[in-house]
Amino acid sequence: MNRPGGRTKSRVLTYDGHSARQKSDEVATEEPLEIRLLAGGEVRTLAVTMRTPGADFELATGFLFSEGVISSKDEIKGLSYCVDRDVGEEQRFNIVNVALRSRAMPDIAALERHFLTSSACGVCGRAVLDQLMHRVGGGEVRLAPEVIYGLPNRMREAQKNFASTGGLHAAGLFTLDGELQALREDVGRHNALDKLVGWAFLEGSLPLKDSVLLVSGRASYELAQKAAAAGVPVLCAISAPSSLAIGVAEEVGMTLIGFLRDERMNVYSGAERVRSEERSSS
Amino acid sequence: MNRPGGRTKSRVLTYDGHSARQKSDEVATEEPLEIRLLAGGEVRTLAVTMRTPGADFELATGFLFSEGVISSKDEIKGLSYCVDRDVGEEQRFNIVNVALRSRAMPDIAALERHFLTSSACGVCGRAVLDQLMHRVGGGEVRLAPEVIYGLPNRMREAQKNFASTGGLHAAGLFTLDGELQALREDVGRHNALDKLVGWAFLEGSLPLKDSVLLVSGRASYELAQKAAAAGVPVLCAISAPSSLAIGVAEEVGMTLIGFLRDERMNVYSGAERVRSEERSSS
Repeated sequence: MNRPGGRTKSRVLTYDGHSARQKSDEVATEEPLEIRLLAGGEVRTLAVTMRTPGADFELATGFLFSEGVISSKDEIKGLSYCVDRDVGEEQRFNIVNVALRSRAMPDIAALERHFLTSSACGVCGRAVLDQLMHRVGGGEVRLAPEVIYGLPNRMREAQKNFASTGGLHAAGLFTLDGELQALREDVGRHNALDKLVGWAFLEGSLPLKDSVLLVSGRASYELAQKAAAAGVPVLCAISAPSSLAIGVAEEVGMTLIGFLRDERMNVYSGAERVRSEERSSS
Repeated sequence: MNRPGGRTKSRVLTYDGHSARQKSDEVATEEPLEIRLLAGGEVRTLAVTMRTPGADFELATGFLFSEGVISSKDEIKGLSYCVDRDVGEEQRFNIVNVALRSRAMPDIAALERHFLTSSACGVCGRAVLDQLMHRVGGGEVRLAPEVIYGLPNRMREAQKNFASTGGLHAAGLFTLDGELQALREDVGRHNALDKLVGWAFLEGSLPLKDSVLLVSGRASYELAQKAAAAGVPVLCAISAPSSLAIGVAEEVGMTLIGFLRDERMNVYSGAERVRSEERSSS
């Protein structure tokens, strides 16, 4: 189900000060993926996303889950690359068909309209939050700072692609002991998270109650919304969160940690899940 | 036309090792912006983007230009925040109305269909490139490495917001001598570039023939496409380019520079525009 292809070879002229030399380099592969929904004899293109090939079925299902189009694996009849005759060999791997058991195409237009209108109403998109999200579980989850501090290194070690191209975002799922459960990469940080959520969706392990999620970049509204939809109690980001990411985290009761690096972090919401041993023993 | 609001105050629990303290922090503001098109008595929501408030009219016009919906300032009759009575005070600044002179609504559905179908056909979205892009000008542009090396510092100095929140992407436009002409920031890197292109669009200075563009993060397909649509001859990124960004740059004859930091850079396409003094004098 995973197609390799995270890297593409490229000729590059490398300048160091004034000296330049030709060399062969590897860059992160970026290609379009079209996500098609099949239901009741209809075919509908739902999205085209620029992604790094690999884990495409997970990306498609994770995207559909986060958007509220599907909620359980049972709704899916089949996942396949497009095999239409008029689609060339190469392009087939850039189109994923998600066939639903449903006899009718979901009312995507209504869904889009809903999103378009209500997300712009209210500073923090409250209407959408109320509709598509509920409070995350894991109220009893407690994590020691040293477990959290260890996550970035564990993710980096697992990120072989990142080391060579420097161009891939990552989303990693960890147990409460800090063990890496799954890692997904992509040029787009939202795609990396969709792949990870799609993996959990296909494994039947949603909601992700007893786990910690780490994303390689910043925490935006979009990432916080996807994490919340997956039921993750703790979301960590290497870089800064946005105001709306904090708003989402507070709304759904998710712990949000930013600037997680060098044994430091900022806790923006849900601080009760971070348990400092030192403080409790002093 | 610019509304301030790049930062939002936030309470944060800062951990340094095991010691934690409460402090007041500033994070990048992220709010939804709905872009509406008005033409021939019709109103159509074209997009909702999560953005940092400020330069909203530029963002809307830059987005519409990059998407091929408008091509000249003359097509715009007016730009305004929504003043419908049923829209609350706060929300008004999250909806921009772009009124067109045209008597009919542009066929957005056809545009979307075109994009959706053709961008997924072919590894590098050739059909779209052929349709929406043409080769950039500035074939005679020559830049010395030291001018290029100086750009990141000049942009950082101008990025007051970035210094305080650590959460804003930036796009900066420079003259061929390395002077900063305009800078726009946003939580989304594509928004920062849309704002910058929108500024140039409203100034009537497109295509941007004699200039260099610097983006704070990575160079993706989306950024390369927007830069190419604006006619920029040289696109520089602080971080890595994707394979498709290189593909776009080669296709339109744009110079693409990545990993621009510490007096070093990688030139991925259009190397003829970089003129090493040392090499020519040795």
